[in-house]
Amino acid sequence: MTELEQTIKLIRPVDQHKAQQAQKRLNSLTKPRGSLGRLEELAKRVVAITGKVRPKITSKAIVVMAADHGVADEGVSAYPKAVTAQMVYNFLRGGAGISVLSNHVGARVVIVDMGVAEELEVHPGLLVRKVAGGTANMAHGAAMSREEAIKAVETGIQIAQAQADKGLDVLGTGDMGIANTTSSSAIAAVLTGTCVETVTGRGTGIDKERLQHKLSVIEKAIQTNSPDPSDAIDVLAKVGGFEIGGLAGVMLAGASMRIPVVIDGFISGAAALIAAALSPQVKDYMIAAHCSAEPGHRIVLEHLGLEPLLNLGLRLGEGTGAALAISLVEAAAKILNEMATFEEAGVSEKED
Amino acid sequence: MTELEQTIKLIRPVDQHKAQQAQKRLNSLTKPRGSLGRLEELAKRVVAITGKVRPKITSKAIVVMAADHGVADEGVSAYPKAVTAQMVYNFLRGGAGISVLSNHVGARVVIVDMGVAEELEVHPGLLVRKVAGGTANMAHGAAMSREEAIKAVETGIQIAQAQADKGLDVLGTGDMGIANTTSSSAIAAVLTGTCVETVTGRGTGIDKERLQHKLSVIEKAIQTNSPDPSDAIDVLAKVGGFEIGGLAGVMLAGASMRIPVVIDGFISGAAALIAAALSPQVKDYMIAAHCSAEPGHRIVLEHLGLEPLLNLGLRLGEGTGAALAISLVEAAAKILNEMATFEEAGVSEKED
Repeated sequence: MTELEQTIKLIRPVDQHKAQQAQKRLNSLTKPRGSLGRLEELAKRVVAITGKVRPKITSKAIVVMAADHGVADEGVSAYPKAVTAQMVYNFLRGGAGISVLSNHVGARVVIVDMGVAEELEVHPGLLVRKVAGGTANMAHGAAMSREEAIKAVETGIQIAQAQADKGLDVLGTGDMGIANTTSSSAIAAVLTGTCVETVTGRGTGIDKERLQHKLSVIEKAIQTNSPDPSDAIDVLAKVGGFEIGGLAGVMLAGASMRIPVVIDGFISGAAALIAAALSPQVKDYMIAAHCSAEPGHRIVLEHLGLEPLLNLGLRLGEGTGAALAISLVEAAAKILNEMATFEEAGVSEKED
Repeated sequence: MTELEQTIKLIRPVDQHKAQQAQKRLNSLTKPRGSLGRLEELAKRVVAITGKVRPKITSKAIVVMAADHGVADEGVSAYPKAVTAQMVYNFLRGGAGISVLSNHVGARVVIVDMGVAEELEVHPGLLVRKVAGGTANMAHGAAMSREEAIKAVETGIQIAQAQADKGLDVLGTGDMGIANTTSSSAIAAVLTGTCVETVTGRGTGIDKERLQHKLSVIEKAIQTNSPDPSDAIDVLAKVGGFEIGGLAGVMLAGASMRIPVVIDGFISGAAALIAAALSPQVKDYMIAAHCSAEPGHRIVLEHLGLEPLLNLGLRLGEGTGAALAISLVEAAAKILNEMATFEEAGVSEKED
């Protein structure tokens, strides 16, 4: 059995019985029943996922995976390809959006080179796990081989497992890769069965003309490669990216270890589609951080059956939405752990 | 000039010029323009409010005001009146929702007895500023005198000013008072000119029958008292509450000191209506934390022209929504302060 198969086999249904116990406790806490709304739902989900009735969210990590995309050569992005590597350096120096927001919520950032074109300088904060120096241009053929696709997913699994060894109560996902909304739109179109136009947006902010071009490049990539919607690894190989495969692996490993996985935006959503196609149960371990301004994201979330926590018009990626949502997951667990019950506090209960 | 008039006179327009400078900086940071969505808007608002181009949100306080309502005698709530005092003790012991969430976001909680019926035990964490031991029953006459209404607002002003002396970068509002959704619905109906049914909900969770009763009590209170919609103090006196008046004062004082005020849910919203009626400019200093599950809240926010940050189905009050939103305000300020610019990070800018 391969590492991927083994991980999938370890993913069990979440613990609904424990979730019921959590509901009972939530009802006993000094507040009108259900009055903390989605925080209460979230607390129950964390209990169901972890199987712990009083889960503590202390050790938090956001895995940010970076890789380059051959399709960037088609001119689908507003930024030059070199920005992928430049932004990895920015992550390492703490100057990026994710650096600031992960600090704010007390989460460590795990930066992974899954396939940046450039050879990056050695840095203690950087995990170099290049599958290759960027994908091939999917407009002309498969982005990667089937073997590379599996390797990307298994690399993600290994990285999540190594993080768990350091202590891990919640896992966030994040991405960096110029042109990766192009790849993600292709994945979303194929795996949700939606037309390309509906799941494609302006990414980092391209104009109308370039958006038309991006649409035709995605159409061409799908036509050229005919990815098989019933085979997620095939879809990843034909139109995916190394960071996307890696993030799918992170999600599968998180679920196999019963760790809640907070899914960031559209690119993480594409990875979630791949993970869910490989193992539908993984969806129960996912928490959707937010709904991105990128139009395809809403469709991806609906397909996954996930309701986003935040709606702040974010479209940066990097795990920035996941960081903010991780703080809500932590808050939800604290409600369960730290609030007094009616009995403990000597507060009268509801009369009717 | 009274203290209230003096405070209102100090409220100046927010600094749009500084907000433009903030926009320039946001555009120079290593992210696609506008890609942090509402966090960027929020950063700009904090700059406009404070007049500081690099505002730091370090010292955070949530003022939670408690008071009893005579109208509770009409049986409009699912909980007995004694719960107001019991919950104040729960706040003081750290067992309530606001205790947990304010801790989570690193905000201090300032608990104020604005008019709890019971004489509360002395506690170092409790400010006793009773205007009276609860309002009169508004179903039969004015909830308080005009003098008491002004005193409630001025007490709120003094409390916010005393907090500012301790250092204060952001202020949140919160409430506790059995039957205070009844009072808030009456205020909302009168000040927004909406029918009572539209702005009245189930509060702590009453059944359909009791909701009908609550509606008729509110209608009766408005008919009996004929509050003057053009005179906010009259509305507060006739159908308001001491905690609601106090919170309106907190908002006015916050604005007068150029401190962002994060408005919690429906009861804080009713207080915001009073504050905005006294000084329309105060709205520019308000940040709406969330949209409550209580149906009148959406109407209040629309009337104030505020777009809520969170939509988590909260309906607890106490400042719980404000606590979560304060964390976003802090995050927004950190984006402005801590992210690297394209130039600093050596990242290439957009091509088109």
